[in-house]
Amino acid sequence: MLRKRDRSERLSLSRQGSNTAPPAIAWLMSQALAHPDLISLAAGFTDNDFLPVAEARELVERIFGESERARATLQYGPGVGVTRLRELTAGRLERQDGQAPGSLDPASVLVTNGSQQLLYILTEALCDPGDLILVEDPTYFVFLSIMQSRGIAARTVPMCPDGLDLESLDRVLDRLRREGELPRLKMLYSVTYFQNPTGISTSFEKKRGTLELLRRYEADAGHPLYYVEDAVYREMSFPDSVPAASALALPEFRERIIYTGTYSKPFATGVRVGFGLLPSFLHEVAFNIKSSHDFGTAHLLQEILVEALDTGIYDRHREKISRGYALKAQAMVEAVTEWFPPEARFTRPEGGLSMWVELPQTIETGPESSFFGETMRQGVLYVPGEYAFADDPIRPCPRSSLRLAFGNTKTERIRQGIERLGAALRARC
Amino acid sequence: MLRKRDRSERLSLSRQGSNTAPPAIAWLMSQALAHPDLISLAAGFTDNDFLPVAEARELVERIFGESERARATLQYGPGVGVTRLRELTAGRLERQDGQAPGSLDPASVLVTNGSQQLLYILTEALCDPGDLILVEDPTYFVFLSIMQSRGIAARTVPMCPDGLDLESLDRVLDRLRREGELPRLKMLYSVTYFQNPTGISTSFEKKRGTLELLRRYEADAGHPLYYVEDAVYREMSFPDSVPAASALALPEFRERIIYTGTYSKPFATGVRVGFGLLPSFLHEVAFNIKSSHDFGTAHLLQEILVEALDTGIYDRHREKISRGYALKAQAMVEAVTEWFPPEARFTRPEGGLSMWVELPQTIETGPESSFFGETMRQGVLYVPGEYAFADDPIRPCPRSSLRLAFGNTKTERIRQGIERLGAALRARC
Repeated sequence: MLRKRDRSERLSLSRQGSNTAPPAIAWLMSQALAHPDLISLAAGFTDNDFLPVAEARELVERIFGESERARATLQYGPGVGVTRLRELTAGRLERQDGQAPGSLDPASVLVTNGSQQLLYILTEALCDPGDLILVEDPTYFVFLSIMQSRGIAARTVPMCPDGLDLESLDRVLDRLRREGELPRLKMLYSVTYFQNPTGISTSFEKKRGTLELLRRYEADAGHPLYYVEDAVYREMSFPDSVPAASALALPEFRERIIYTGTYSKPFATGVRVGFGLLPSFLHEVAFNIKSSHDFGTAHLLQEILVEALDTGIYDRHREKISRGYALKAQAMVEAVTEWFPPEARFTRPEGGLSMWVELPQTIETGPESSFFGETMRQGVLYVPGEYAFADDPIRPCPRSSLRLAFGNTKTERIRQGIERLGAALRARC
Repeated sequence: MLRKRDRSERLSLSRQGSNTAPPAIAWLMSQALAHPDLISLAAGFTDNDFLPVAEARELVERIFGESERARATLQYGPGVGVTRLRELTAGRLERQDGQAPGSLDPASVLVTNGSQQLLYILTEALCDPGDLILVEDPTYFVFLSIMQSRGIAARTVPMCPDGLDLESLDRVLDRLRREGELPRLKMLYSVTYFQNPTGISTSFEKKRGTLELLRRYEADAGHPLYYVEDAVYREMSFPDSVPAASALALPEFRERIIYTGTYSKPFATGVRVGFGLLPSFLHEVAFNIKSSHDFGTAHLLQEILVEALDTGIYDRHREKISRGYALKAQAMVEAVTEWFPPEARFTRPEGGLSMWVELPQTIETGPESSFFGETMRQGVLYVPGEYAFADDPIRPCPRSSLRLAFGNTKTERIRQGIERLGAALRARC
């Protein structure tokens, strides 16, 4: 990849600079750009047609209609986040979790540039190169590339239909203890609603069980073991789904829970505002790092969200797109049912933007595989499942799964794409 | 500062997490909040009255008036930055530098969350803990806190009225070579227009001289030595000032120049958009790190700047505020001339948001000093100059200077504040 004259430049780089690779997804996106006729079931984008154009226009008109408010919005806001947005966020989570008003402290909220920035900052605050994070197997591939660039190693925990397999988690923790590796472990990272990529949602009991297990191993770790609940898709639930409460509803574990969420995906990805709730000590550390990154998330974006939440525009929009995505998911499930061979196992999405398909192990799906090449020639792009599996010496990397996104592809194109994938699969089964 | 129960939490932290302190300025801001009657000459904020309320309203109406454009703006943009904004930025710099159209490649532009994010990413891309950066003495204190949190050491180079003292730079580089430290040196950081805190602008010849010196030591370093030209205040020049060309006008050094700038300060700090121009190899590394941070700067903010630049609204606003800040700076200089004792030496600002005053060494100005305490009791807040001096074993930290900001304080209050500071100073001279 690197040209020759770049060799000396490489010698300037830090360890992180050397380790940072283009995200795997960047290669897929370049394929999509190079082949504009491709049916992309790869990008985790939201649907352009579902974007709140009229709503956003109304919101900015409201903000700019009040001269003093407009003025304040164009100036720096508090680096930690706009006070009203932090209050609205805490109140919203209390209601979603069925907790009493006041049970969450708005001071625990930190506003960030999408929840991704908070994930990044957490790895900075907690992990030195060589440290360990426990991840779901499979997990969100962007988090894996953050870990890789920062020299953090993963240990994987298999998934059940309702979240982590707690017996496996216990075994993994026990092995780390026996090997003297627990002091290097800092956190467990879990995408708890409509997980990317599997679509699995974690039950409330599993969240409690995970926290109990982590607590049991803390003495041997010599420090807190944090539970990072990434709730990025929580507000992307379909109308019939009943999402479980978050770990924040377990106040006895509050000091070990880091909750991350976002307003970008449900509302508008071009208005990037995420947030986290952190124990007070970590909140201070993360805020200080955020201050070094950028001195705070842009005030204008935060005010747009404040106005959207305060007026109910956000929630009305969320309900509308929820029905839209449910229909697209249903179309994809029906097409997969019709066209894929019976050997393919898949999850029926209840939220989020994608579904997960496991194929017989004889069919490899990686970017170098003959299957990937053939489907590209057929004009369909998917995310190879192997991108979502961390390197872990305890198991070979699974190579026979697909992530199929329905977010930003029209229903008719979804059907066509699945039909073509199905034909390629049937020829191999 | 830490409560007892936080002791075990500290053990989870990474080296960076442990090293990251609240920015020095945070303490000053908390003082300002705790004493609302205080005349703050501390914050480097822009003037609320100069914010482009009507202009921003017009810009968002234009964007949201076109349905397709509004839709695109509410979706993710390219992670590297909006194409049109990168073109406008390259073209603008060509004109400012008197270079031919096409001499700067828009592909070298990376859009970031303010230029601060780019500075942060550069330290990540190039520096491991223990590495070195050459900084001006004094320098931008936020950059010093980024370095401190990341375990990067500073070596200082004294300033002349037209930029770095090149003989001193040569001596510093030579000492690093003799001590075998050059391989740890990665870059020289310079704020080249109306430097924060001194107000000094670097001449074009000094930029060339700096690049020539750095090149001469590269063989002993074993890798490129980058020149980071932080041009954050370039567009905050006063009407009579004639800013020098940037280092980008030296194409023979292009592969060693990292140029950073921002649209936030001249336009609206609540619309945070900065940028950098980087050599192609480093651009790729910085872009990959940026992708890990946040997947790209919010599309809406970038479109607002595109529209502002394309319509000329940005430039008209810039000219207007340029006159406004010049008048405020003049009022501050007149007040300092009238009220400060003749022993005080100061610079006459030609741009930017602050001025710099050096006092006799018998008067210490640090946050623990009796002078600071007295001026606080008199209701005036300034930034102690020592915040802007890096730790460097080769000289004691200067402790007798002040940074006085005129950005967001009304003229009458500026005069009052200077009068009170002057009274406290005269009592000591």
